[in-house]
Amino acid sequence: MWLNDELAAVFGIKHKLTSETAQAIYDEIEEKLAQPAFRPRALYERFNIETLTTTDPATSTLEHHQAIRDSGWKGRILPTFRPDAVVHIDTPGWIDHIDRLSEVSGIDAGDYAGYIRALEQRRQAFKRMGATATDHGPTSPQTLHLSQNEAQAIFARARRGEATPEDAARFTAHMLTEMARMSAEDGLVMQLHPGALRNHNESLYARFGPDMGADIPLATEYTRNLQTLLNLFGNNPDFTLILFTVDETTFSRELAPLAGHYPAIKLGPPWWFFDSWNGMTRYRQAVSETASLHNTAGFNDDTRAYVSIPARHDLARRVDANWLANLVVRSVIDMEDAVEMAHAAAYDLAKKAYKLD
Amino acid sequence: MWLNDELAAVFGIKHKLTSETAQAIYDEIEEKLAQPAFRPRALYERFNIETLTTTDPATSTLEHHQAIRDSGWKGRILPTFRPDAVVHIDTPGWIDHIDRLSEVSGIDAGDYAGYIRALEQRRQAFKRMGATATDHGPTSPQTLHLSQNEAQAIFARARRGEATPEDAARFTAHMLTEMARMSAEDGLVMQLHPGALRNHNESLYARFGPDMGADIPLATEYTRNLQTLLNLFGNNPDFTLILFTVDETTFSRELAPLAGHYPAIKLGPPWWFFDSWNGMTRYRQAVSETASLHNTAGFNDDTRAYVSIPARHDLARRVDANWLANLVVRSVIDMEDAVEMAHAAAYDLAKKAYKLD
Amino acid sequence: MWLNDELAAVFGIKHKLTSETAQAIYDEIEEKLAQPAFRPRALYERFNIETLTTTDPATSTLEHHQAIRDSGWKGRILPTFRPDAVVHIDTPGWIDHIDRLSEVSGIDAGDYAGYIRALEQRRQAFKRMGATATDHGPTSPQTLHLSQNEAQAIFARARRGEATPEDAARFTAHMLTEMARMSAEDGLVMQLHPGALRNHNESLYARFGPDMGADIPLATEYTRNLQTLLNLFGNNPDFTLILFTVDETTFSRELAPLAGHYPAIKLGPPWWFFDSWNGMTRYRQAVSETASLHNTAGFNDDTRAYVSIPARHDLARRVDANWLANLVVRSVIDMEDAVEMAHAAAYDLAKKAYKLD
Repeated sequence: MWLNDELAAVFGIKHKLTSETAQAIYDEIEEKLAQPAFRPRALYERFNIETLTTTDPATSTLEHHQAIRDSGWKGRILPTFRPDAVVHIDTPGWIDHIDRLSEVSGIDAGDYAGYIRALEQRRQAFKRMGATATDHGPTSPQTLHLSQNEAQAIFARARRGEATPEDAARFTAHMLTEMARMSAEDGLVMQLHPGALRNHNESLYARFGPDMGADIPLATEYTRNLQTLLNLFGNNPDFTLILFTVDETTFSRELAPLAGHYPAIKLGPPWWFFDSWNGMTRYRQAVSETASLHNTAGFNDDTRAYVSIPARHDLARRVDANWLANLVVRSVIDMEDAVEMAHAAAYDLAKKAYKLD
Repeated sequence: MWLNDELAAVFGIKHKLTSETAQAIYDEIEEKLAQPAFRPRALYERFNIETLTTTDPATSTLEHHQAIRDSGWKGRILPTFRPDAVVHIDTPGWIDHIDRLSEVSGIDAGDYAGYIRALEQRRQAFKRMGATATDHGPTSPQTLHLSQNEAQAIFARARRGEATPEDAARFTAHMLTEMARMSAEDGLVMQLHPGALRNHNESLYARFGPDMGADIPLATEYTRNLQTLLNLFGNNPDFTLILFTVDETTFSRELAPLAGHYPAIKLGPPWWFFDSWNGMTRYRQAVSETASLHNTAGFNDDTRAYVSIPARHDLARRVDANWLANLVVRSVIDMEDAVEMAHAAAYDLAKKAYKLD
Repeated sequence: MWLNDELAAVFGIKHKLTSETAQAIYDEIEEKLAQPAFRPRALYERFNIETLTTTDPATSTLEHHQAIRDSGWKGRILPTFRPDAVVHIDTPGWIDHIDRLSEVSGIDAGDYAGYIRALEQRRQAFKRMGATATDHGPTSPQTLHLSQNEAQAIFARARRGEATPEDAARFTAHMLTEMARMSAEDGLVMQLHPGALRNHNESLYARFGPDMGADIPLATEYTRNLQTLLNLFGNNPDFTLILFTVDETTFSRELAPLAGHYPAIKLGPPWWFFDSWNGMTRYRQAVSETASLHNTAGFNDDTRAYVSIPARHDLARRVDANWLANLVVRSVIDMEDAVEMAHAAAYDLAKKAYKLD
């Protein structure tokens, strides 16, 4: 669906993509992409984008964001704070990442107390560059609240390269709670998308490195795992936690009940394999009766394919329009409600959830 | 859906509920509720209720049930035996509950053998007051059959306040099997609805106490967990076990196959978050091909909102009529079957499953 | 649906099956079955079957297959290699099965190295009789790659009747990986259908023996469990692994992503309780967007009810036609694609996946 829409609407290609037409279409796209009208900023304006965010490591100096600002261009491109590489102590090269964190923050992150301060400093730096959100992708959504002593001890073992897998799991779980604490203090919206087993295909990983597509979903448990974090911050009016999943069975069983109960929680849109016609249709069926539309974060996409942005939003809006029309024809809601809900799903909810006013 | 139907059908309110109309509608309801036609017994008759059951702790003396009987009113209000507080040894105040059990039953429940006899006595007392069923809400559906020695030893530790969490889990699992044994003997229908993690929001619990809505579902396993109980009583013609769930993935994977196989099992209607249009629709799709309609317990609701009873039953009946109509138009069943199945789903199956003749 | 179709299309029975008509219909079927036109070979030709496969233990001498070949009949009846009884060391009578394996293969299977060679010999014997596939039904899809020493040690303990349940689980997991290794070498397509807890109803098992229908599905985990096997053989162009499940939540969460990623994997059709109208409909909705049609193995049935074969295939084809028609009317695919996809789903994909050219 995306591809057809991209080819037709973005590139003006009229013929069907087949083995026979593939080369001609490729050439046509290549020729178009060389034109000024297809430069990123021109497409940003043509796509009528209001805000586009990147995800950036905690150690980023955000110099490309600074360059955009310095260029005088008016597009709103914001960074997002993604600290996975510094909070998962089993990340390859973690010790170097911490050295880099010290360097970028100007705070010695070599012990646990300094590390926490350095992270707080980076969040402030991201905020100064316009960031409104953070992003966290642990394997498991487990949350813990370790004693200061235990957190320090694990951190010290990790610095010496002596941390165990159990240490890594406990530290990640603890840092999710710490990140929630910081979000409650600095107002950055916390996004959590757990449940992918990274680098499943080891030979692909050995050859091409991380994030090359061989991440496979896992059954994910939220009810017990999030309890520690939610008991500390779930009722906090200054905290927003947006939850994503790759295990759609959790939508009706765990996520919608949690979002219906805890003021801090919003449900993110269907992510990854579920960012699709069927995935979005099932999502609305699964969550709406329990969590309602207004406990969702509206639609955002998560693409590396820039030209797919209009198609993705268009598809989501059509699914939602279908869902609402079905409720109207069965007299569950009336047209007045449907119009307001359609606008909320397409625009208002995302803007509010991500504090993009 | 329920609310619209309640307002219109029960209270005769014609305008839409909005922020603007809320106060006027509230006043109108308050005024109606003061009228004799809106007293509970008048509504019972207006709603055309045949039987309404309460759930009562094992230690209840059922004096309110006695009062209804003594009043001469002909409504059929029956108690249901719910022993959670005396069989979960980790219940706050469990030792006091056991003292109360001794007092109410007239049997010393201070050791395990007396405790079992006291429970049997209470079940008989409930039966004399018309009860046809029991109700059990453990966190997990695990079932075990402990040796007499182990059960006694755990009970003794619990009496001394020395039971471990492992003791509590094993004792609860054992008592589910004991309750099945008693049901096979005294004929009370056993209802099991596991899978909710109680009091998830600890600050809410600290402020308002148990059962204040912060119970969140858990992924639930039935196939292995119920095996001990089912191997002892699942083929017993005198035993009925009605299974509920808050994990709808178990409907097609575990519950429908179990209900299709074991004569004792009936599937309860979709419970809690799934007592909804989409929830009930998915339930029929998930269970019918494997378990058939006739291994379900028909529809019952589980409400604390008395005036929602007609809406709940009406909604369930419309879902079932939709489901059956769909089968008729695709020629899977004919009209003759559909009419019989509709009556069974709406009335006959519940009456039979709960022995309400 | 199957039964109606069998009665009408295979037996020409016109009236509805009810308590009243049951005896007459039984008599009519019995009378038909005595006629030459209803003998198995006549039905094979009438049903227009191209290939029918049996599943046979590793210790089978396949003499009935030889007899069919010797008869001169042209029907294509092929064996399938099913080694469960010799690779699950906790199978009742396992030691006898291994003695039988030595006898049939002519290779002493009394130690681990001989056992492996004997299994390789049996696979070759099956291939000579036309087999193109193997079939594996462990409780769990766990895969391991044990050291030669550990595998030998467990095998030796099993031969002495001293293996633990942990030994049995590890050995089964190891042998799945070994079977994949053999498939990559000899080209037999590997089918895996885990997740059923066998003989759930122990009194039925005691009375009637294994495979009497009291197998109940379990929640099943594929992402972590298959990783060892897939890292060794998932990218191997000579290996095909067809995955089945009785836990339909894994279709969208684990199986479709795995099939979309690993070249060796194809998804089998919905199995057992999901070989049904709703089951197949949900399967297409759950897997197609992620895995596409062409990573599925097309339709095959798994029946012991010979006369249900046409009904089963007809039903599957109608579900697929419905699915494709829905995509056409929504302009997701065009008619040209739909026609090709319908043919693939009904015929081409199964023939290719099972190497039946």
